[in-house]
Amino acid sequence: MSDATKPTESPAAKAARLDTTDELAKLRDRFVLDDATVYLDGNSLGALPAGVQDRIADVVGREWGQLRIRSWTESGWWTAPERIGDRIGALTGAAPGQIVAGDSTSVNVFKAVVGAVRMAQQADPARDEVLVDATTFPTDGYIAESAARMTGCAIRAVDAADIAAAAGPRTAVALVNHVDYRTGRLHDLPGTTAAVHAAGALVVWDLCHTAGALPVGLDEHGVDLAVGCTYKYLNGGPGAPAYLYVRRDLQPRFDSPLPGWNSHRDPFAMEAAYRPADGSVRGRVGTPEILSLLALDTALDVWDGVSLDAVRAKSLALTDFFLECVAAYVPDGVVRSVTPAEHAERGSQVALRCSDAGAVMGELIARGVVGDFREPDILRFGFTPLYTRFADAERAARVLAQVLEGTR
Amino acid sequence: MSDATKPTESPAAKAARLDTTDELAKLRDRFVLDDATVYLDGNSLGALPAGVQDRIADVVGREWGQLRIRSWTESGWWTAPERIGDRIGALTGAAPGQIVAGDSTSVNVFKAVVGAVRMAQQADPARDEVLVDATTFPTDGYIAESAARMTGCAIRAVDAADIAAAAGPRTAVALVNHVDYRTGRLHDLPGTTAAVHAAGALVVWDLCHTAGALPVGLDEHGVDLAVGCTYKYLNGGPGAPAYLYVRRDLQPRFDSPLPGWNSHRDPFAMEAAYRPADGSVRGRVGTPEILSLLALDTALDVWDGVSLDAVRAKSLALTDFFLECVAAYVPDGVVRSVTPAEHAERGSQVALRCSDAGAVMGELIARGVVGDFREPDILRFGFTPLYTRFADAERAARVLAQVLEGTR
Repeated sequence: MSDATKPTESPAAKAARLDTTDELAKLRDRFVLDDATVYLDGNSLGALPAGVQDRIADVVGREWGQLRIRSWTESGWWTAPERIGDRIGALTGAAPGQIVAGDSTSVNVFKAVVGAVRMAQQADPARDEVLVDATTFPTDGYIAESAARMTGCAIRAVDAADIAAAAGPRTAVALVNHVDYRTGRLHDLPGTTAAVHAAGALVVWDLCHTAGALPVGLDEHGVDLAVGCTYKYLNGGPGAPAYLYVRRDLQPRFDSPLPGWNSHRDPFAMEAAYRPADGSVRGRVGTPEILSLLALDTALDVWDGVSLDAVRAKSLALTDFFLECVAAYVPDGVVRSVTPAEHAERGSQVALRCSDAGAVMGELIARGVVGDFREPDILRFGFTPLYTRFADAERAARVLAQVLEGTR
Repeated sequence: MSDATKPTESPAAKAARLDTTDELAKLRDRFVLDDATVYLDGNSLGALPAGVQDRIADVVGREWGQLRIRSWTESGWWTAPERIGDRIGALTGAAPGQIVAGDSTSVNVFKAVVGAVRMAQQADPARDEVLVDATTFPTDGYIAESAARMTGCAIRAVDAADIAAAAGPRTAVALVNHVDYRTGRLHDLPGTTAAVHAAGALVVWDLCHTAGALPVGLDEHGVDLAVGCTYKYLNGGPGAPAYLYVRRDLQPRFDSPLPGWNSHRDPFAMEAAYRPADGSVRGRVGTPEILSLLALDTALDVWDGVSLDAVRAKSLALTDFFLECVAAYVPDGVVRSVTPAEHAERGSQVALRCSDAGAVMGELIARGVVGDFREPDILRFGFTPLYTRFADAERAARVLAQVLEGTR
């Protein structure tokens, strides 16, 4: 029996106490949510920010419907990718002018890895190895392999924790996930970045599971390139555009494999010869999907006045508390957390291993607790500090115990 | 003085007569339009179809806002790219299972050209040349050059009309625009395709300026691969997702340079090894931008019951009539059409060359006639048969004459 279940304070009472003193509690009002569901899948698709419906109605009805073509300039559509990129930069520790929004994460991984390999080979043509972490989200590995194939490199998969040691004189670039999508393990971004640099190589970070969940410090830690999606903790909507970070001093050497006209120095001159733009714009490709992009723009309003340190503190408190409730409610040995107990190694999700996990998650969802299932035996629960309450964590653990009781 | 200005029937009277007998006239009600503006820029951004606002409000408010993650299955989000691709296929002469929607045109050009080069080199490794038409929309040329560079090919620009003759034993693939974006010239898709095939090479067609404007006949003419955008004559909205066609018998050999997880045979198995899906799905990459994609889905409803032969007939009648009105209203020599007079060589736009074209277009727009300007001296007027009236063509020519009178 853990501390949380002392007679002096039940998990439910503790949840109520923690919610009462939560300085971020009021931010939940910035989202469209209901109390029937405990939504712990914001690490897959963030909840709807309250302002998005009105903004999109205006974008469709007025900007497209009435202004039509004029909106490319008058409604700021054309410059939205870099403007929104800067807003993402404010949440990931990147000064303006280094992030551009657009395309999918996969497409951005391709730009980033090819771009990084070219920079590395420009300095040393003998560098012909791309390192990827062995438990990467699949698309990063698939795309890195294509990037390697198309730049004459070999790919080598190693555990993310071993990337620092694995980087060597043949390494061109290492592609690492900041948080493992299954286990929720947070990898050492500053240390790995420094080690890869010491080996003379570049590092590309995938921030899908950290942007909006904790401070990333892209500039502070000297990250070379980074990519990420915006539909998880950034709540940008289904399939919302991803983004690409290229550190300012590397931008002049960024040689994109997808040099679409949106990245041209003077796109409307319609020149036959490609001349890349300066700055983050160089990472653009084709015409951005404006409806999805501007939904993201408004979704980012929920961050006004929010401290990422406070978000991180609440994230850790939520996952700590959820694990405490699971320990209190679920008999020993029925589930096992594969998410690190150490704060320094934990993202903003808890992954529990249990038998028959697919069926268990199905039943949880039927009872209003929405997480997700990942092969082969993982229950994933994402904790979004902007809208998840401690009471939600308590209820999720309690319903989980009931489901597990029923399935044994 | 042309026939149109005979005392017996003024251009305005003829316009009224043609509108009265226009069997497509009622389709204008399927769009949000006003009579203050003559919108002749549907070849850049199509007008808003009437059903889109309600659909997107539902997608945002209910599918995302209430169902959240469940919508990937319950609202059909996951399969939308291939489902919508099939709808585009119905409008371009492709049987189901060959077109997938998603990404930008530029990204799809990259997939198509690299994929085609790989097929060509699989059959004959000596094929190392990519032909592009010399007056291509710039992004096609930029991306084709990157694709060539990354597959060990050289690029050669030749006039689109000469592609057929230029294709030879070294040619891997030819990338051709079906209609020239500046002049509005329609290129010979059946003849060029046959000639490129006779040379043992593959052809990729860019349908940006023909899909929704005229019958394309992808299957009928044996096209290998094709790409196109959906925000022009398909009215999908600003930056609406583009699409990729890979002919069915070529699909097993389609080796995508962007093998993202959405194109995996079993994406949710999250396998470390890439195994491509069969069919059009193989052309997918990352998570689709759902808001933009589903706006396109509803936009395609305007085609219900519409014959593309009727669209083509009206398109030619509109551009004929506009040229007739220009001849009637504008003094000889002030403007010169660079759009072919021959129907077989004309798309659905008219491009007029005149001095000070940028200023002229600015004044036209100020007076409610919206076309666009293309460097260095082109006025572009796009005619969208679904919503453009003959009266619009007459008014546009009349206002153009007034503007030119004022600027001389």
